[in-house]
Amino acid sequence: MEVDKKEEIASESSEEQVVNPWEVSAKDGGKIDYDKLIDQFGCQRLDESLIDRVERLTSRQPHVFLRRGVFFAHRDFDLVLDAYERGDKFYLYTGRGPSSEALHLGHLIPFMFTKYLQEAFKVPLVIQLTDDEKCMWKNLSVEESQRLARENAKDIIACGFDVTKTFIFSDFDYVGGAFYKNMVKVAKCVTLNKAMGIFGFSGEDHIGKLSFPPVQAVPSFPSSFPHLFPGKDKLRCLIPCAIDQDPYFRMTRDVAPRLGYSKPALIESTFFPALQAKNGKMSASDPNSAIYVTDTAKDIKNKINRYAFSGGQDSIEKHREIGANLEVDIPVKYLSFFLEDDAELEHIKKEYGEGRMLTGEVKKRLTEVLTEMVERHRMARAAVTDEMVDAFMAVRPLPNMFE
Amino acid sequence: MEVDKKEEIASESSEEQVVNPWEVSAKDGGKIDYDKLIDQFGCQRLDESLIDRVERLTSRQPHVFLRRGVFFAHRDFDLVLDAYERGDKFYLYTGRGPSSEALHLGHLIPFMFTKYLQEAFKVPLVIQLTDDEKCMWKNLSVEESQRLARENAKDIIACGFDVTKTFIFSDFDYVGGAFYKNMVKVAKCVTLNKAMGIFGFSGEDHIGKLSFPPVQAVPSFPSSFPHLFPGKDKLRCLIPCAIDQDPYFRMTRDVAPRLGYSKPALIESTFFPALQAKNGKMSASDPNSAIYVTDTAKDIKNKINRYAFSGGQDSIEKHREIGANLEVDIPVKYLSFFLEDDAELEHIKKEYGEGRMLTGEVKKRLTEVLTEMVERHRMARAAVTDEMVDAFMAVRPLPNMFE
Repeated sequence: MEVDKKEEIASESSEEQVVNPWEVSAKDGGKIDYDKLIDQFGCQRLDESLIDRVERLTSRQPHVFLRRGVFFAHRDFDLVLDAYERGDKFYLYTGRGPSSEALHLGHLIPFMFTKYLQEAFKVPLVIQLTDDEKCMWKNLSVEESQRLARENAKDIIACGFDVTKTFIFSDFDYVGGAFYKNMVKVAKCVTLNKAMGIFGFSGEDHIGKLSFPPVQAVPSFPSSFPHLFPGKDKLRCLIPCAIDQDPYFRMTRDVAPRLGYSKPALIESTFFPALQAKNGKMSASDPNSAIYVTDTAKDIKNKINRYAFSGGQDSIEKHREIGANLEVDIPVKYLSFFLEDDAELEHIKKEYGEGRMLTGEVKKRLTEVLTEMVERHRMARAAVTDEMVDAFMAVRPLPNMFE
Repeated sequence: MEVDKKEEIASESSEEQVVNPWEVSAKDGGKIDYDKLIDQFGCQRLDESLIDRVERLTSRQPHVFLRRGVFFAHRDFDLVLDAYERGDKFYLYTGRGPSSEALHLGHLIPFMFTKYLQEAFKVPLVIQLTDDEKCMWKNLSVEESQRLARENAKDIIACGFDVTKTFIFSDFDYVGGAFYKNMVKVAKCVTLNKAMGIFGFSGEDHIGKLSFPPVQAVPSFPSSFPHLFPGKDKLRCLIPCAIDQDPYFRMTRDVAPRLGYSKPALIESTFFPALQAKNGKMSASDPNSAIYVTDTAKDIKNKINRYAFSGGQDSIEKHREIGANLEVDIPVKYLSFFLEDDAELEHIKKEYGEGRMLTGEVKKRLTEVLTEMVERHRMARAAVTDEMVDAFMAVRPLPNMFE
């Protein structure tokens, strides 16, 4: 479910921005134009009134990622809230393509946000590990894909999900039965031309790629999980994901009514920028473009100091005079993702933007925030046992999933 | 796994003969040129020496379908026999696409022959019911495809398979786990261009069709059945089928070595002709083109008398003078499939071909043979209980499958 392939194919097409599950590249190497993406994809902006509604319905402060526009677009999230207000619950669906051992901070974003949604709305969650996808796209062996899926599951569990409400599954393990039947139903509704249009496949791509979109589509339908949602075929699904996954769910929403299913709703995020900020998103293929959950305190400090693109001025004098360009400053961007305290963030932005604070000071604060966050993750992950992974991945009913 | 769709798409392309899993049509509406097919597909003719070898190895008379050239082509059948002679067993794989309630005689041919092979070589057998395929190609519901699969399983079981050596499975039930892993491995090795070339798919076809070839491919690999062949990854597979299925297995044989698997061997039959003999094969869509296992004695008599194309002459005088044209005569063709007694068949061909026997007499004999055969099938099928179907379809080890 994630973009790692962009490096391989991105640079050639810099004239227009390209965002799909395998490629994220901005126009002329600049910034991703998210407004344009909303128009192009036909999704909706997640506006203040919707965020206020979330606050009212959940009786808690909305997540930083909502307050600060990280999750910025949606499809039918308003309908999900309408239904929730009437007492109709929903379930959450997110996922990960297990292509690497270690996750970087960008990978954690959907999971941190999904954990918040699960807690705030008290709803069940399914997490798909698309080991089949990575086996096909990354040319990993089946065994290696499955090993990575299990390793990644530990990182996901470390985000704090509630085992009584969460089902994590590997496609290689779980595809079959009701899930496969839904795959066939979806596949019947999508022509090759349509799939090539949506996903940009070519004749040189292997047929596994053509076969995969239904695999990512069908967790949107409750009947794909008969052990979780028996007789609940009308249960709505809400999918938190990065916006590059939108094509999968555009396809899914297109076919859902023809199969008698509800269209899944989506809540979609921007991309987490690379340290160098050249692209819209971090990449697993360049270790210095990202901070990993396995990085040591020293790694984090070094990477931030060396690679984090600064909007500060070349000389202290000039900086004191005109201040930092916050629009391009990565330390500030990162802090706006991970520094919880709104007041402190505003303070930093004001002081730094007006030249009273220097890049070094901002980087120091970011280093503290990320070191603490990564350390917390490392400890949580170390506490995840194989038995816990088995428990999350067991095909079993979740009797208290709506409580 | 069968051709029913030909009627829908055949007639337009009569210039060249077309044989693929969905279309069988002869050049200019004439006869299928099987020699040409062998050249075109690159398979081998099943010659006398190979049939003699089968006789020697199995210590029994070769099946009528071998003696009379119904199974006429092969791929690597000689290698299977070489290995068998050295003491290496193999397993059989055949299948059916469950698109209709009642089977016609053409449908029974691979099963009758497979039963003989199972008995003669004392080997296990897997039978795939491609309910997923029929759901996609025939636009049947999942439920209806599965119901038909189970109904067809009863007809298959009625052919006399040994439950201690036979595993029958529905794709909708069985796809998953090791089977799905092999599907992904195969899919990775086949480009869209290649699949379109082999199967003639177009951009208007749905992606389910593109996803299906690996499903039919992977029963060729023993690791798709971990409950049957654990640790026997090198076990050879022999596939008895009609030659229209060759494209699936050409693809399978192409990818097998890249996955470290043996290429499956094939033993391939001609098509069973329609009563009217217009085409190479019977069709489920015209009930009068075929004799069904559900036909009554009266139905059979009527169909043969009314519709079976005769090579006899227009007048008795002319017939007595020049005799029947056996090349086009359907009653003689049908007898050559189903009349066990070689001497009687030769006698009929001689007498009828030289005008001493009349069409009515041959049709009468055919009616007797088919009525008895269909009646025997009906009784055997009536004796098949739901428990027996469950037993054949249970995912279980077969401890005595090679004895």
